[in-house]
Amino acid sequence: MKSFFNVISLSNALKYKDLFKPVENESIEFSKSCNAVLAQDVISDIDIPDFDRSTMDGYALCAESTFGASNSNPAYINIAGSVTMGEKPDFKITTGNAAEIPTGGMLPSGANSVVMVEHTEIVDSTMIEVYKSAAPQENVIKKGEDFKKKEVLLKKGGKLKTQDIGVLAALGKTHIMVYKKPVVGIISTGDEIISPDKQPVSGQIRDINTHTLSSMINQAGGISIQAGIVKDDFNKLYRICEKTLKNCDMLIISGGSSVGTRDYTTDVLKKLSDSKIIFQGISISPGKPTILAKADNKPIWGLPGHVASAMIVFKIVVNPFLSQLQGVIENTNKWPEVTAILTRNISSAHGRTDFIRVKLSRKNNMIAAEPVLGKSGLINTITRGNGLIKIDENTEGLKKGSEVQIIPF
Amino acid sequence: MKSFFNVISLSNALKYKDLFKPVENESIEFSKSCNAVLAQDVISDIDIPDFDRSTMDGYALCAESTFGASNSNPAYINIAGSVTMGEKPDFKITTGNAAEIPTGGMLPSGANSVVMVEHTEIVDSTMIEVYKSAAPQENVIKKGEDFKKKEVLLKKGGKLKTQDIGVLAALGKTHIMVYKKPVVGIISTGDEIISPDKQPVSGQIRDINTHTLSSMINQAGGISIQAGIVKDDFNKLYRICEKTLKNCDMLIISGGSSVGTRDYTTDVLKKLSDSKIIFQGISISPGKPTILAKADNKPIWGLPGHVASAMIVFKIVVNPFLSQLQGVIENTNKWPEVTAILTRNISSAHGRTDFIRVKLSRKNNMIAAEPVLGKSGLINTITRGNGLIKIDENTEGLKKGSEVQIIPF
Repeated sequence: MKSFFNVISLSNALKYKDLFKPVENESIEFSKSCNAVLAQDVISDIDIPDFDRSTMDGYALCAESTFGASNSNPAYINIAGSVTMGEKPDFKITTGNAAEIPTGGMLPSGANSVVMVEHTEIVDSTMIEVYKSAAPQENVIKKGEDFKKKEVLLKKGGKLKTQDIGVLAALGKTHIMVYKKPVVGIISTGDEIISPDKQPVSGQIRDINTHTLSSMINQAGGISIQAGIVKDDFNKLYRICEKTLKNCDMLIISGGSSVGTRDYTTDVLKKLSDSKIIFQGISISPGKPTILAKADNKPIWGLPGHVASAMIVFKIVVNPFLSQLQGVIENTNKWPEVTAILTRNISSAHGRTDFIRVKLSRKNNMIAAEPVLGKSGLINTITRGNGLIKIDENTEGLKKGSEVQIIPF
Repeated sequence: MKSFFNVISLSNALKYKDLFKPVENESIEFSKSCNAVLAQDVISDIDIPDFDRSTMDGYALCAESTFGASNSNPAYINIAGSVTMGEKPDFKITTGNAAEIPTGGMLPSGANSVVMVEHTEIVDSTMIEVYKSAAPQENVIKKGEDFKKKEVLLKKGGKLKTQDIGVLAALGKTHIMVYKKPVVGIISTGDEIISPDKQPVSGQIRDINTHTLSSMINQAGGISIQAGIVKDDFNKLYRICEKTLKNCDMLIISGGSSVGTRDYTTDVLKKLSDSKIIFQGISISPGKPTILAKADNKPIWGLPGHVASAMIVFKIVVNPFLSQLQGVIENTNKWPEVTAILTRNISSAHGRTDFIRVKLSRKNNMIAAEPVLGKSGLINTITRGNGLIKIDENTEGLKKGSEVQIIPF
């Protein structure tokens, strides 16, 4: 039995992600780039808008022409033309003149303000009355006010959101360089594991980890390859690892949690060409027997076999490494940490970071976090909760009523 | 100019979703079902686990054999066999006997408890010493303890999460009935709008709404069809609406926000066969000029042309209708509402529901919501924030320091 006494802390485990480099770039169509990670800064090569634009239906004019205008003392303004959407006006506005303009229309040369149609009245086809003083720039978006030419609008390493797709459309960046989606192989091991399409006989259980891990990889922006189920046999596991590793950027072996399987996994990882065991065991619960190795400059994981443990380790430990392969640079504008109030005491060991499944619900002015209790190895604990809380390694348990950071799960 | 005086409240607008029926069902592979909506209850046809299972490496025995055992007074137990992973033991355990068992192994008939290997010592190949009393069911997951036969595990109308994929794998439900992804057509209108791959000349702007709405539809689990850009021309808009509607379950016309375009859209909607205008105008800001019509029993939207307004109306108003088409039944186990503290006073009109873009950040023990200021029609306000707050129609403005519900954006 291999020892897991020399476990490392979670924070030290996560530092090893810097051992690995992002995957290659590719050019993709912007409209398919949601959740892709930018491999370049996106710089505006135009002013947006590219012209002074009206934000209202009304009349474009020189604000000075209306100074002092009021209900009792309207300004009389000559109509010099009409602005057509999507076209550059072929006339100028001077003091005392105005042009009809629709929302989004381009201000004619000479105009610096738009008075809303609600504050005007038509006298005849050549003249309007204006009942309100307009300020310069009122109801106008200035050229370059939205985005300036040469401004860096989206940064390398950012995961593109819907809003960013909008920015790319505005800039006409129809193709952009992004990091390829990292390919992650998954191998499930264990003599007792069978494929979900098979009928278990006594002592067998269906393979869950391949499918939950696959779903988490795809959700995180990777591409999962399901390499199948391998019996607890050194040679078989070695061969499938070697083969799968060729076609992927990261490999996950979801181990049987029994001692024997754990040993096979470590031995196989050691035998892979150019391999090195980075750590064996992290001081977290669940997930202590997690192994990280490196071969061919790719991360290879041995994850615990328990379904909930494998999911939690993926979320907390593996995912940051996947982000590293994706080229993600941490966004400063992300959704903030959310906290909740713990509804009962929880024990935890000093020196170990614990992740507890919780059911979150709104209780008046706070969010309550109710720990989901259940034996290790039960699957149903993953469906009964909707969050995780983290108990720091320097904390020995938490009292009911403590404020805890919550993590969607 | 059509009047928007008879606007309806947001809550009344949302009630109209019941006018529309979910789309058809289809059978899909469970491994591709993440975010799909179940069109059937999923009922367990087996006990999980299907056998009493050990949660530890150790010895399976009758707990009674160890009662009274301690460090100074070990119990001496005969080894009657060894459990192999994935196989049914072909021997029985009686009082005074035990069998080696790995984590996940099937308990032999007669055994009701597992003593951890750490609490035993091997005497010779036929006998162990046990240093601790084992309780019945200790370190054992009972048959059916995880999921019971005939139990409803996943409900019709639920959007499948990674955890649910795990449940489907465990049950061997390799194909499941889900609602098809609703197909949503998008038409962008406006004489000034050009495709992002074109170079704008003065007065023109690139089409953003097609792409931001498309991204939001796909993120929400629909399939977007980009029907293109249409000039402000009644006949052209009518023909493309009629054609697109044939191939989709919902249609969105992102209108120019100018008066002219708005009129065309309403007139076209009225002329579609079997059509009815449901409402014209909602008392929300932004998004007041939102139109809902129904034709061929499908919802058809006229959305404002401003990029930020169209996105907010999609998120707040259109999305619940899309969920209705998807067959979603509201989940009681969803992530709770999160609140933040407003960092400055905000005005709002009584009788109108306002959605304000905010930048959220963690400040000590609370989340601060800083309103993102900027003129209506600016695109950059959508990228500067990371959330929305809602100001209720019965509230006239909010003071700095108020607690507000936040919505990811």
